[in-house]
Amino acid sequence: MNQSSDTDRSGQPECFSRHGGGHKATPGVHFTVSVVLPAGGTGERTGLVTPKQFCTFLNRPLISYTIQAFERLSWIQHIVVVVAEESSALMRDIVQRFQHTKVRVVSGGATRHRSIFNGVQALDTGESGATPDVVIIHDAVRPFVEEDFLLEIAMAAKENGASGAIRPLVSTVIATSSEGYLDHSLERGKYRASEMPQGFLYHVIYQAYQKCSEFDFDFGTECLHLALQHAGTKAKLIEGPPTLWKVTYKRDLAAVESIIKETLCGSACVTFDGSERSRDLGRCLQKVMGSFDMEVDVLPELIGDASCLSREWNFIQLCVNGSGLSEVEETVKSLQAANRALLHPVVVVWVRLDTSDGMSVSETGAGPLLLMELASAAKLHNILLYGIHFLLSEEDTGFSDGSVKRLAELTYTLIHDRNAVLAGQMLHA
Amino acid sequence: MNQSSDTDRSGQPECFSRHGGGHKATPGVHFTVSVVLPAGGTGERTGLVTPKQFCTFLNRPLISYTIQAFERLSWIQHIVVVVAEESSALMRDIVQRFQHTKVRVVSGGATRHRSIFNGVQALDTGESGATPDVVIIHDAVRPFVEEDFLLEIAMAAKENGASGAIRPLVSTVIATSSEGYLDHSLERGKYRASEMPQGFLYHVIYQAYQKCSEFDFDFGTECLHLALQHAGTKAKLIEGPPTLWKVTYKRDLAAVESIIKETLCGSACVTFDGSERSRDLGRCLQKVMGSFDMEVDVLPELIGDASCLSREWNFIQLCVNGSGLSEVEETVKSLQAANRALLHPVVVVWVRLDTSDGMSVSETGAGPLLLMELASAAKLHNILLYGIHFLLSEEDTGFSDGSVKRLAELTYTLIHDRNAVLAGQMLHA
Repeated sequence: MNQSSDTDRSGQPECFSRHGGGHKATPGVHFTVSVVLPAGGTGERTGLVTPKQFCTFLNRPLISYTIQAFERLSWIQHIVVVVAEESSALMRDIVQRFQHTKVRVVSGGATRHRSIFNGVQALDTGESGATPDVVIIHDAVRPFVEEDFLLEIAMAAKENGASGAIRPLVSTVIATSSEGYLDHSLERGKYRASEMPQGFLYHVIYQAYQKCSEFDFDFGTECLHLALQHAGTKAKLIEGPPTLWKVTYKRDLAAVESIIKETLCGSACVTFDGSERSRDLGRCLQKVMGSFDMEVDVLPELIGDASCLSREWNFIQLCVNGSGLSEVEETVKSLQAANRALLHPVVVVWVRLDTSDGMSVSETGAGPLLLMELASAAKLHNILLYGIHFLLSEEDTGFSDGSVKRLAELTYTLIHDRNAVLAGQMLHA
Repeated sequence: MNQSSDTDRSGQPECFSRHGGGHKATPGVHFTVSVVLPAGGTGERTGLVTPKQFCTFLNRPLISYTIQAFERLSWIQHIVVVVAEESSALMRDIVQRFQHTKVRVVSGGATRHRSIFNGVQALDTGESGATPDVVIIHDAVRPFVEEDFLLEIAMAAKENGASGAIRPLVSTVIATSSEGYLDHSLERGKYRASEMPQGFLYHVIYQAYQKCSEFDFDFGTECLHLALQHAGTKAKLIEGPPTLWKVTYKRDLAAVESIIKETLCGSACVTFDGSERSRDLGRCLQKVMGSFDMEVDVLPELIGDASCLSREWNFIQLCVNGSGLSEVEETVKSLQAANRALLHPVVVVWVRLDTSDGMSVSETGAGPLLLMELASAAKLHNILLYGIHFLLSEEDTGFSDGSVKRLAELTYTLIHDRNAVLAGQMLHA
């Protein structure tokens, strides 16, 4: 989920060039690697109308997260997404909307194996040297695959002809009699669950599919088995992390959302308005939010600093003097201009420090309406703006641990939950 | 998760009487059923310090949800929870805090099978007729087991001697060679994952454990296998729902939280203050929240009506005239007195309807501080109080669809998310 910002997003999403990023030398990967993502599932096990790969998380379909997991890697050349005919237009729209540049969409067959074979064949454009050395096959509904593990799979495929992810079995596997009684149970230690990704030398997976029977195409489930049977290739099995799991049930959707939100609230940038008090508050906030496992940078100014905008930050803007809302507006505009909210909503929290004596109630009451308007406009660009009114009495010279903790908790909740319904609200700390 | 309110919560949690609720006749269950819940896991696969069964969801440990799933059923007699010696005090505290009346806590053995056998033996108090006809064995970390399925398991155990839940395999199961290569893959259709709950005639499970070897005790994983091998009993296998899954990984914790929250936001009660305008708003809200799959009742008054307080409702209080905060305070007190927030936090949303001309900004500014104080006190009793300021201009005679939808969305978000950090906040619709 560590989306790097150096991906070239200017290319056409639809047709990929043979001379894309994949040809650059990457330490350890001295061969070409492309990906086939079968995405034809109907999602019947979630009990939802929308197939899982098209379910959205923070306004983005699951398949786009999976694509991004590959697209950000310089050593991945092309990504062929295989979808059912009826999802083809939707898929092309997703590729365009989220500016995926390495993707080609092709139509699937009637079964999983026919779809994968379509994808493998689509990697061969007919030109000499066009086919990749290694093909990685992955599921559209396993979005959290990491570079380290993909590298392991690709290297093992290059060396052994085929490779695949495995996981220990969570449940004991049993054989049932035809009447529905226990026949026998398998010794758990001897077996593994076969997961994705799997890697193949191009000619191995091609040969496996070319030689396999109609029965294999219709009822087979395991690519590694076909490689063994029809290409004589014994796959190297590598234990993967639990995050490789396949999004299958409705409950898995909640797990996906939670993981995505968790990865997005790892860091924030606090800017202060130049006053000493607001700088002190920034440092207190940094300390407390650090204890929530959030890495916080404190900066005097943000606007104009392009490197700040390109980082995977959430933004917290503190102000003591004046409302500070115009600075917040500037930040929102800069984020918009930098297209920072393309792949996920960006959070901006406006913290307004008030001392009770220096400010009448009616003045504090004016901010909320302006904030609401600004937030409504920002939301259209996937930027979530919230306000926190931090009230201190004039006598407080420093900030009490309790009050800063309360402010930090509210800020963290807003950043973590990324709840669009609450955008524009002015909370009280 | 449909916690019934007719459970007798007055008994001592620790020592269970032989003449408890389980002896009452239940349609179809003309035999006695007790439960053994092994809860000795260390939770290493979640990567957390706290074992999964003690992870809290909305301030309540997972194991208490699982216990409740059984305790609410009149035909379940006793529940023996088997925990590691070091968790014994914690477990007793949980039983007392959440007023579980059918539970007895016993110490586990070094392995899962030794622990289960300890639990089975603890069901035999030595008195004649004390042992149940059927024992259900379940995992502490499978909290969402439903009555229908438990009935099926109990009946099948009574009839066949043993029964167990199964699920289709999600991944292909493969056998690995000692060098880490694919040996062969199993035909997915012939195998199933063995899950929990499982049911046994008491003498079958007792005999299975009495005859089994030290090796079985130390390395066995499957109770059904022991019943087959040592008591000659072929278990009847029954496919269970996906919600039976075992909470295993960190991602499963997010899934659990999501399911719990989902079950708690199914219904709400809207009360209005007697004015026609507030009644109309109540009806509009009922309609829109109905479209979010929330069942909403609209009532003129709540206080004093005990049946309202005992239902699994969330509470929305509307007011036009006056602040209405004293009525909200009454509701909180009544909920507290009825011990309604024992098993999960109860949400109360105070909606204050204001017309912009009739109310100065400084007056609207007064509510938030009182609300914050009231909410802080309520939170100590597991009652989450939020406010929504619903502003209409004097010219609006009816309620626009847009404004009611906005109010409904905010209300639904507060009820669904049940976020304690936001308690006491005054939001604006």
